[in-house]
Amino acid sequence: MQTQPTPATRLDLGYDKHLMLFSGRANPELAAKIADKLNVDLGGVTLKTFSNGEVYCRYEESIRGADVFIVQPICANPKSGLTANDALMELMFMIDAAVGASAHRVIAVAPWFGYSRQDKKSAPREPISARVVARMLESVGADRVLTMDLHAGQIQGFFSVPVDHMTALFMLTQYFGDLNLQDLVVVAPDAGRVKLNKKFASKIGAELAILDKERPAQQVAEIGYVIGDVKGKTAVIVDDMIDTAGTLAAAGQTVLDAGATRVYAAATHPILSGNAFQNLAASKFEQIVVTDTIPLREGAPDNIRVLSCAELLTDSVRRIFTDDSVSEVFGGENQLF
Amino acid sequence: MQTQPTPATRLDLGYDKHLMLFSGRANPELAAKIADKLNVDLGGVTLKTFSNGEVYCRYEESIRGADVFIVQPICANPKSGLTANDALMELMFMIDAAVGASAHRVIAVAPWFGYSRQDKKSAPREPISARVVARMLESVGADRVLTMDLHAGQIQGFFSVPVDHMTALFMLTQYFGDLNLQDLVVVAPDAGRVKLNKKFASKIGAELAILDKERPAQQVAEIGYVIGDVKGKTAVIVDDMIDTAGTLAAAGQTVLDAGATRVYAAATHPILSGNAFQNLAASKFEQIVVTDTIPLREGAPDNIRVLSCAELLTDSVRRIFTDDSVSEVFGGENQLF
Amino acid sequence: MQTQPTPATRLDLGYDKHLMLFSGRANPELAAKIADKLNVDLGGVTLKTFSNGEVYCRYEESIRGADVFIVQPICANPKSGLTANDALMELMFMIDAAVGASAHRVIAVAPWFGYSRQDKKSAPREPISARVVARMLESVGADRVLTMDLHAGQIQGFFSVPVDHMTALFMLTQYFGDLNLQDLVVVAPDAGRVKLNKKFASKIGAELAILDKERPAQQVAEIGYVIGDVKGKTAVIVDDMIDTAGTLAAAGQTVLDAGATRVYAAATHPILSGNAFQNLAASKFEQIVVTDTIPLREGAPDNIRVLSCAELLTDSVRRIFTDDSVSEVFGGENQLF
Amino acid sequence: MQTQPTPATRLDLGYDKHLMLFSGRANPELAAKIADKLNVDLGGVTLKTFSNGEVYCRYEESIRGADVFIVQPICANPKSGLTANDALMELMFMIDAAVGASAHRVIAVAPWFGYSRQDKKSAPREPISARVVARMLESVGADRVLTMDLHAGQIQGFFSVPVDHMTALFMLTQYFGDLNLQDLVVVAPDAGRVKLNKKFASKIGAELAILDKERPAQQVAEIGYVIGDVKGKTAVIVDDMIDTAGTLAAAGQTVLDAGATRVYAAATHPILSGNAFQNLAASKFEQIVVTDTIPLREGAPDNIRVLSCAELLTDSVRRIFTDDSVSEVFGGENQLF
Amino acid sequence: MQTQPTPATRLDLGYDKHLMLFSGRANPELAAKIADKLNVDLGGVTLKTFSNGEVYCRYEESIRGADVFIVQPICANPKSGLTANDALMELMFMIDAAVGASAHRVIAVAPWFGYSRQDKKSAPREPISARVVARMLESVGADRVLTMDLHAGQIQGFFSVPVDHMTALFMLTQYFGDLNLQDLVVVAPDAGRVKLNKKFASKIGAELAILDKERPAQQVAEIGYVIGDVKGKTAVIVDDMIDTAGTLAAAGQTVLDAGATRVYAAATHPILSGNAFQNLAASKFEQIVVTDTIPLREGAPDNIRVLSCAELLTDSVRRIFTDDSVSEVFGGENQLF
Amino acid sequence: MQTQPTPATRLDLGYDKHLMLFSGRANPELAAKIADKLNVDLGGVTLKTFSNGEVYCRYEESIRGADVFIVQPICANPKSGLTANDALMELMFMIDAAVGASAHRVIAVAPWFGYSRQDKKSAPREPISARVVARMLESVGADRVLTMDLHAGQIQGFFSVPVDHMTALFMLTQYFGDLNLQDLVVVAPDAGRVKLNKKFASKIGAELAILDKERPAQQVAEIGYVIGDVKGKTAVIVDDMIDTAGTLAAAGQTVLDAGATRVYAAATHPILSGNAFQNLAASKFEQIVVTDTIPLREGAPDNIRVLSCAELLTDSVRRIFTDDSVSEVFGGENQLF
Repeated sequence: MQTQPTPATRLDLGYDKHLMLFSGRANPELAAKIADKLNVDLGGVTLKTFSNGEVYCRYEESIRGADVFIVQPICANPKSGLTANDALMELMFMIDAAVGASAHRVIAVAPWFGYSRQDKKSAPREPISARVVARMLESVGADRVLTMDLHAGQIQGFFSVPVDHMTALFMLTQYFGDLNLQDLVVVAPDAGRVKLNKKFASKIGAELAILDKERPAQQVAEIGYVIGDVKGKTAVIVDDMIDTAGTLAAAGQTVLDAGATRVYAAATHPILSGNAFQNLAASKFEQIVVTDTIPLREGAPDNIRVLSCAELLTDSVRRIFTDDSVSEVFGGENQLF
Repeated sequence: MQTQPTPATRLDLGYDKHLMLFSGRANPELAAKIADKLNVDLGGVTLKTFSNGEVYCRYEESIRGADVFIVQPICANPKSGLTANDALMELMFMIDAAVGASAHRVIAVAPWFGYSRQDKKSAPREPISARVVARMLESVGADRVLTMDLHAGQIQGFFSVPVDHMTALFMLTQYFGDLNLQDLVVVAPDAGRVKLNKKFASKIGAELAILDKERPAQQVAEIGYVIGDVKGKTAVIVDDMIDTAGTLAAAGQTVLDAGATRVYAAATHPILSGNAFQNLAASKFEQIVVTDTIPLREGAPDNIRVLSCAELLTDSVRRIFTDDSVSEVFGGENQLF
Repeated sequence: MQTQPTPATRLDLGYDKHLMLFSGRANPELAAKIADKLNVDLGGVTLKTFSNGEVYCRYEESIRGADVFIVQPICANPKSGLTANDALMELMFMIDAAVGASAHRVIAVAPWFGYSRQDKKSAPREPISARVVARMLESVGADRVLTMDLHAGQIQGFFSVPVDHMTALFMLTQYFGDLNLQDLVVVAPDAGRVKLNKKFASKIGAELAILDKERPAQQVAEIGYVIGDVKGKTAVIVDDMIDTAGTLAAAGQTVLDAGATRVYAAATHPILSGNAFQNLAASKFEQIVVTDTIPLREGAPDNIRVLSCAELLTDSVRRIFTDDSVSEVFGGENQLF
Repeated sequence: MQTQPTPATRLDLGYDKHLMLFSGRANPELAAKIADKLNVDLGGVTLKTFSNGEVYCRYEESIRGADVFIVQPICANPKSGLTANDALMELMFMIDAAVGASAHRVIAVAPWFGYSRQDKKSAPREPISARVVARMLESVGADRVLTMDLHAGQIQGFFSVPVDHMTALFMLTQYFGDLNLQDLVVVAPDAGRVKLNKKFASKIGAELAILDKERPAQQVAEIGYVIGDVKGKTAVIVDDMIDTAGTLAAAGQTVLDAGATRVYAAATHPILSGNAFQNLAASKFEQIVVTDTIPLREGAPDNIRVLSCAELLTDSVRRIFTDDSVSEVFGGENQLF
Repeated sequence: MQTQPTPATRLDLGYDKHLMLFSGRANPELAAKIADKLNVDLGGVTLKTFSNGEVYCRYEESIRGADVFIVQPICANPKSGLTANDALMELMFMIDAAVGASAHRVIAVAPWFGYSRQDKKSAPREPISARVVARMLESVGADRVLTMDLHAGQIQGFFSVPVDHMTALFMLTQYFGDLNLQDLVVVAPDAGRVKLNKKFASKIGAELAILDKERPAQQVAEIGYVIGDVKGKTAVIVDDMIDTAGTLAAAGQTVLDAGATRVYAAATHPILSGNAFQNLAASKFEQIVVTDTIPLREGAPDNIRVLSCAELLTDSVRRIFTDDSVSEVFGGENQLF
Repeated sequence: MQTQPTPATRLDLGYDKHLMLFSGRANPELAAKIADKLNVDLGGVTLKTFSNGEVYCRYEESIRGADVFIVQPICANPKSGLTANDALMELMFMIDAAVGASAHRVIAVAPWFGYSRQDKKSAPREPISARVVARMLESVGADRVLTMDLHAGQIQGFFSVPVDHMTALFMLTQYFGDLNLQDLVVVAPDAGRVKLNKKFASKIGAELAILDKERPAQQVAEIGYVIGDVKGKTAVIVDDMIDTAGTLAAAGQTVLDAGATRVYAAATHPILSGNAFQNLAASKFEQIVVTDTIPLREGAPDNIRVLSCAELLTDSVRRIFTDDSVSEVFGGENQLF
């Protein structure tokens, strides 16, 4: 610090801002990719789970004055022995410790936002769990949140702090464009996902069809039927996430039964919990295309393709830090959900 | 107040709670119906707009300790000379004055929640206007909100205070059931409304179809086309609101062009602004069925049918006051949006 | 962005701050003058009112990291078709969108602060409307407010964020000084405005008189009478705002009746609603001197003189941006109300 | 507690509410009078000041579920060895302890609201001290505030919680009415107090005059002069408070010099600090009429008359507790400042 | 609801309050005991963990207007498959759902407050985890918290809402009193627990000794030594919790090595994670006396004695509901930590 | 300010940050030392106490954009005529005025944090006074707090803003190391201070003993006794503060009675209120070593040694300003309490 030779009532100092990137234990591979692309080392942080299940963190170096980006999707990571709730609490403590250690800004980079499916009451006396998570992050002082393909765009409104909402959709449509498939039809797996599938269809120049659970006349709930025309076509079923994949596998079968020649699936977030691997391995999908917002367990079936969203995230992190437009990365179309 | 004969360190008093119902100027007819069904008089309140456009309110009687219910959908009312923003600000001042006058609880009864369509960013650097309205109501101390058929159920999550979210859907499906129409098909006007139309279809035992703007091969945006089967059927297009009715009228025509024999429209909220009356009068709709959450201007075309939601609102107001279940009114299915 | 050749745990960046200036539709002429004096272009922003009366905004360029100044007095603007409440809500959405788009600081430049006359309860069960407006602005994240000649200086206390409170008083006294009028007396139009008129009188070296509604002995309320001496003098009646001008015109007449030879009026804010133009045209005022905090409708009578406060506002905006003293602009005497 | 014979999922209980009244050490005499009129004993509370100057409190009996009224004007009390800041902090700790001890509601009864004169910035870089006090009380959980004759009514707006603002004005005008003085004129001591004096004058049917510091022509600041007519009349100078009484004594002299035959003073709050007793003893005032919101030190001069506001406070406390109108006590005219 | 025969502006209703008791999955046995003692059935609530690890809850009956008590210590429960973080999040969602479902008050009954050991920074850049948990509970609207033997009483200060802080200490001292042991000495296991052990010693009339890790002269850290006299005595080591019991077992050995004839351990909270069972089984403790705030896994060694705190909790729950003093249960001495 | 020659939509400016240091009246000597070491002049601020006991402040120069450090321990200063509560309120107003005058950050430098002993409830229905003070400081907008040797480290958790918690312990142990005393034993004055004394003992390589009030067998409360061995040794009694010194003096005597040859005392904060000077003058302490966090009154006895903590504070202030690690000053061991 340069001080004036003669005392004055103020001490002046040029100001530089700096970025530091840390990873929790939910998806360290993704964090490492981002660090690599940013050309920084991941910051040192001690993370552990005590035998009673409580998690602990401590930053190993000074973060005073830094823009601290914490990469932590809110998901389980079997390799780290972390459940989804552990990941959430680890993120909470990392934010609290960063605020308490005088970070300039603390940014939660949670490309998968856990509990986002519970974004409204679908029955009386339920929680709005996604709002609870938003409140939690704000209660400890998160300055902003960077996330991807929220189950519903309205979740942004649960926050008071700015949310940068990115999308992997173009990455996915690009991938399908490169496959050069002909006679494509995009099939919404249910009424709630028609809008997303419509956008996907528009981007790849395909027609749209919708799966419905049952024809009211016949009341055969199990099988489902297709509204729209899939016969002789290559079908793509798009969703924001794939969890146990039971419904998705059934949807793939229904589409084939309705005359489609081939069927693909695409989704941003590969939760793939429970019997997902078995369900997908047994399915007829040519490919199930996902991204790496959530780390895959060991033993994934061969038809899963994982595209990395690290480039997108890196670009956004860098632009947040340098105050450049984030929506520009997506040509202004990042608010798709 | 009964005081003890001998001084003690405490003064005891039995506790009665009481309800008072007030109306802003956005929909006094609806408020009057609720008052009538509750068997109370509407409370006295002075409401006026100064020549500079500022609005003013003053309660004419003590409301100390009361559960104050304020009926005010956030919409224009030409009869009162109120714009939507005037209605919102009048509601704000009525809440502030009620809190300042020591009401026990202040409940905003806004069956139509203005700005609810702007519930997320659909382009960068837009506001999330519905969240702004939610924050405003909470910033002056609203204790709870009673609303109906929100554009998206997630809007509940914008609030910290409890929201009672009612639906007019059953009233509408009941009405169509009573019409005894045959060969019904419910047609979603666009991809974003499929879920609502699916529910409507299920309730009345109809099939589902979807309108899409353009076939990607032909690129004729103006006309639109139908996904699913409407030929020879009676179609119902369902939406949460009807605003200028331009798109709706075009949708009705598309459905007829696709072979439907007759077409109806149904929606909870009749905004009907701009050229809505001309558009609907010129349309082929047998009936456009709406409710009275928003007052109709003079000169509505003959094919508009208005069902009153006063009974539903009265029931909910009473149950909120008496701490009885509100969802019970709807068989637990009031979270439809 | 320059990155280090070898990875380090932090990425450094020099920091520049920047200002962007936007205008709502309440007073674009004033905003344009400020932009001109700052030598910037007004930032691009889409603003519209839907046919249902809801307002909408969207920034057309990135504002990330900027100090965003939004010029929007909370008043009607007939040229833009805006009511006072529309102007307020437009300001709200512009703030919300700016915060959500990651502006560094958002500053509301509202030289006329609507609802400022309702700054306390003057009767039981009224709202404190000016506080409601303050809460609203803070609820969406305004970082600071720049305003002028508040009806009462205490309104600053309704905010938690810093308020820069400017005054046009010196501009007005300077104007009267330049007129070189002799035998001046400043006449407070009622008991509540004596303090302001006292200050005005001190600045121009005039004596003070006060208008009172009625002499208790005679009980003739309509006419009013003057406390103090105005006979043979040139009178100036000063107020913070002129609304319908009915009372002001009557005051002018009373002063003349009491023997004044000529009478002028001066006020910062020309609301001039309702019959103001007729009242002033029919009055005996030599001149009514106001500023351009509020845009005038077409058809203003000839005796209205409008001084521009753009220079003052520009100076303050620049100083807020550069962290220079704002009170210095006013010689430390900007807290006059 | 009566429990059901057979287990059910809920346990019911009739609800009684109760009031408890406590006093800090700022004005225990006033609190005792209120307790007496309410026919309750003052609740037991340990209050002490440690030798390092920190204050301490502890409620001696359970207050769980009670409406706890704490009587504590924010003023010094030499008899208790309390400075104004001590009184404020004692009030803070009494509120915190009451909230922590599960009181149902905590009401600060502060008839004199300390720091109320610093209710706005009168120079740059000053605090708005009255707002600071309001924030403090809310930060520990005060549910409402009961106060009297605030220096400016806008101070109510500094609070989020309801404020009951009472006035002693009618008590004072009643007193002067009973004196049956003839040819009365009410003289505002300076420009900022004209509105109050105007109201006082209206109530007692007197004319109004105003004191001004200097005639601009003559520039004799020390003496002051009277605007309006006081010759041969009995003058009353009204203010909300009397502090050191230096200015007031000079004002009395000026009024007499201007030809008044006799002069009285009236004010709600007798701060009377510094040389106030000497100043008033040496003054020509027939009487200085005040209330007991603030306790008088020993040795008050004979011309001070103290009226008790205990009846007014008792009435208000009782009505707050029973949810009856408080403004009714004042015929709706309690918002005078 | 009884309505008046003639309309009036208000509707009156007698008010009854009611209590409902719910249990999360962390310690349903304890909740069942409390329900039994209160003579209510536990309320119905659906609780589940999805395969992706997210937890879900839904109240099965209306809780509108009820005082909802949720029993959920923040600990793992292997029988329910819950980790400590799962228990915490389940509690969060139960609170959020209860608030959203219009409970009158929501009370978290968490006799063991997880993360309470991380109640301050013991190294730079750590979180204050107990504060994080407090903020979380408040962020979703918990109205109050009932807990027991916090690691430090200051944790109460992390909350804004009232905390009822109970103690099991008297239950434990009573147990030891009933054992009729002679020549007792209470041995603090380290410097931070001396205060608690001192209190325990006072209650049972025993002397105090302290364990220290190393004599500075000898620098033998492993063994530790005793400050004070334990030779020939029966020692009791008291702590607020026992986690892995490694340190405790070593402490027991050190005390015996220093000449004690027998050694007991006592603690409120039996976390007993990791190798705790092995460590205690292999230890020389006559008995390890704990309570049931945390459920024991299967296979606990024989020397563990579990006393139930259900009576204490029931008493406190009942008193909170009926607004009776809680501290009275403990003779005013419940603030021991 | 350099503006672009051609208008653009943004105005850019390089950013420099600056520090300004101000002192309240609680410890201006300490503030002057810090200013001197920082090589700045103390900023000009008007501070006064009105005769009614209210305090007032005003910054004499612009502080817009500055990091404002306010040095004000929360203690009485007889030289300034300030009580502890006066000091606290002066700090409050200085913060409020700084925020209102647009300081960039406002940092309260309160090396002695008043009311820190009341950091939890030790009896029912007490306040948690330290939390009240924390809330107060945050309610007016303090951005961070710099303090020293808090009575309990948990007090940090009462704040939402970052707290820099320094320690004087190493300064004190260094002092004793330099004295080269032999056969040292550190004696905790009671059970609650054992942890601190243990740390002190470790740092200077001394053994530990503890004072207890009474042996349960003998019930002689007055005298106390020593647990551990002090015979023939030089004893040091360590505490965080010394208030009236009555207990400390008795402790010194007890230690001598138990056979110690000499006794010293050490503490960070010299409150020394009431009879402290007499008690210490009459005591047998060789030296009582304290720091200058609190100014000493006149007439301190000769055996008091005051070490200055100005160097430590200066170092921390500078590092906060320049975003360098504060814990590094203490080798990461500043969280001792």
